[in-house]
Amino acid sequence: MARLKGNLMVGQSGGPTPVINASLAGVISEAKKIPEIENIYGLFHGIEGVFTKQAYNLSKEPDELINKLLYTPASILGSCRYKLKDNDYPKILEFFKANNIRYFVYIGGNDSMDTCNRISKLAQSENYEMQVVGIPKTIDNDLPYTDHCPGFGSAARFVALSTIDSGRDLECMSTFDDVAIFEVMGRHAGWLAAASALAKKVSEDAPHLIYLPERTFSLEKFLRDIKEVHQNLGYVYVIISEGIRDESGEFIGAQSAVTDAFGHKAIATGDGPGNYLAKIINKELGLKTRCNRPGTIQRSLAAVASRTDIDEAFRAGSAGVRYLAEGITDIMVTLERAQGTEYYCETGYVPLEKVANIEKFMPDSFINQEGNFITDEFRKYCLPLLGDPLPEYARLIGKPFSLK
Amino acid sequence: MARLKGNLMVGQSGGPTPVINASLAGVISEAKKIPEIENIYGLFHGIEGVFTKQAYNLSKEPDELINKLLYTPASILGSCRYKLKDNDYPKILEFFKANNIRYFVYIGGNDSMDTCNRISKLAQSENYEMQVVGIPKTIDNDLPYTDHCPGFGSAARFVALSTIDSGRDLECMSTFDDVAIFEVMGRHAGWLAAASALAKKVSEDAPHLIYLPERTFSLEKFLRDIKEVHQNLGYVYVIISEGIRDESGEFIGAQSAVTDAFGHKAIATGDGPGNYLAKIINKELGLKTRCNRPGTIQRSLAAVASRTDIDEAFRAGSAGVRYLAEGITDIMVTLERAQGTEYYCETGYVPLEKVANIEKFMPDSFINQEGNFITDEFRKYCLPLLGDPLPEYARLIGKPFSLK
Repeated sequence: MARLKGNLMVGQSGGPTPVINASLAGVISEAKKIPEIENIYGLFHGIEGVFTKQAYNLSKEPDELINKLLYTPASILGSCRYKLKDNDYPKILEFFKANNIRYFVYIGGNDSMDTCNRISKLAQSENYEMQVVGIPKTIDNDLPYTDHCPGFGSAARFVALSTIDSGRDLECMSTFDDVAIFEVMGRHAGWLAAASALAKKVSEDAPHLIYLPERTFSLEKFLRDIKEVHQNLGYVYVIISEGIRDESGEFIGAQSAVTDAFGHKAIATGDGPGNYLAKIINKELGLKTRCNRPGTIQRSLAAVASRTDIDEAFRAGSAGVRYLAEGITDIMVTLERAQGTEYYCETGYVPLEKVANIEKFMPDSFINQEGNFITDEFRKYCLPLLGDPLPEYARLIGKPFSLK
Repeated sequence: MARLKGNLMVGQSGGPTPVINASLAGVISEAKKIPEIENIYGLFHGIEGVFTKQAYNLSKEPDELINKLLYTPASILGSCRYKLKDNDYPKILEFFKANNIRYFVYIGGNDSMDTCNRISKLAQSENYEMQVVGIPKTIDNDLPYTDHCPGFGSAARFVALSTIDSGRDLECMSTFDDVAIFEVMGRHAGWLAAASALAKKVSEDAPHLIYLPERTFSLEKFLRDIKEVHQNLGYVYVIISEGIRDESGEFIGAQSAVTDAFGHKAIATGDGPGNYLAKIINKELGLKTRCNRPGTIQRSLAAVASRTDIDEAFRAGSAGVRYLAEGITDIMVTLERAQGTEYYCETGYVPLEKVANIEKFMPDSFINQEGNFITDEFRKYCLPLLGDPLPEYARLIGKPFSLK
């Protein structure tokens, strides 16, 4: 397909990450190099901007914006969680035609890739020449055909550091507190919860137990596990993925949760499984239990963003525009891990229709036999994504001894 | 008082901080320089170590421990929340005598200063020569006679960064989410909650409302405030201090909280005011509301510790031992802000009996007239404690414009 003179529209969608603006920075800086791209527009609140007909003119922003975007958390264009209806697509295409949009870049997750795919197919069926690329973005790490997703490494770093650090807090308070639960995001996939174990070195370190949506949650087994670790160590740090479900497929502790526009249970609107299970542990085992539920802080705290993640998010954005310039369309950018000893990911791409609406779950080889912890294979996969080395904290060499 | 040959006992008490080990590092490194100090013992789990007669021999740890302690969160010796009874004190003194403890250093908060004071008075009444110093430690910043408390600056940095960053998250999701609540620790004082505003630059930035224990909480006024900000901005980021109370003195949302050994309501054991108020906002105003409740993560995440705080915590620890070596006793170390343009705190001290069991609250000049935000005077007081400059994030210069 030949390259057409026209405008580029970029949008950000879904739950933000600390590095989604780094991808936008990549898009803008690359688009500025392409002579055929006349204006770079930024949809105001993602695809909702089509209906309000609102956008930013990013071509007019000063160059220094690019650098600031690299460390500015959340979606600077505004994001959305609007579920498109079938009759919305013709309106989108009409809007794109009216504004001579010939390049569409959407930074988002599973649902956004479906949006990209359907808009592109409609344009093709009406012979409107427009190239479309999706840039992966999600802390959930649940997009297929990519080694991992930009946004995941930074949230994973937050979760790994928060776990080891607040695990030390619990350990030192173990004559007072018994159990700490950390409820981790990730929707239906356990990737982010699994990352909690990456700074753990010795058995005393948190976490001690991890419950993932990839395994059916059994309350009986859970309470047995807690009791056992508590008997051995005197305290238990437990990671609960927000998306764990029981045998019948019901989310744990989601009685009070509401359903969002995509038909997903909006877990964050209820008490969540963490608080719910904390109460059960208190009651059933008589163990003093707290729940840490940092919520959106885990997907936004830029101070602990992974430098590797920032770099990859930027490169995913710029690669997307480069592919457009090369005449490639209907793709999602991917990260492909190079073989070899040193970690590095090249960018690549995959047809949109392959990824639209598909969730990638943790493979069996990343979860232990008992279904309550991760394996070394997961550790090896995940650790490089967190960027700079994780801290090595002090432990006393001597044991407490008896005085008179 | 002349300096006696004997052992030094150090302990850590109460809820930990990211820098309480930095104070311990200061104690150990200074104690090693004092010829009269024979062994440096570390009480296992604070004053509870007296009853189990368990301690670490810190003199035998390698020198590299000191550096590692500077960035290792929580209390490496183990902490406690044991409320001493009157008949415990003679046992403590007996234990100290039996092990020739001539120097006692306790790193802790209000209750610990009372413990120090009472042990010292008992020793004096029995003519047992022992010097006692308290090193202030609390993220709550509620100890009197010191400019601020080691531990506060680091937790304040976490709260300030988490607020501005997750505020950006809410802002970009404002076509989906309406309100975010961040429940901040601080017990009966609002210092830590107030620090949430320190990275705020413009009206769009979080937080928009702050509710502090220093002001009686009115649910009616609260809902009016929320409604007003939501009408103006389209979203509201609210800081709730865990210790807010209603007219009758009851903690908000603490129906399910249990009472701890000191007779304090252990707020973290219940649903807390954040989740409680989120439900009320949902119901009364029909606004979609989340609650971020990072719990112990806010008092442990070492990656965002304030460098100023680490430095001051270390200096408070070493100054305490230096005062002992100078023959001074029955004091708590203080931080005293030097007059002048550049921020610096010298160490000083205050008699233990003046600080024991006394809580310092935010003065009126630090809280706005409406009782729902801080003043510039607080900002000026607090900002230097957070260490390195806070980030300046990108904002687009252009406004969204209308396309065809």
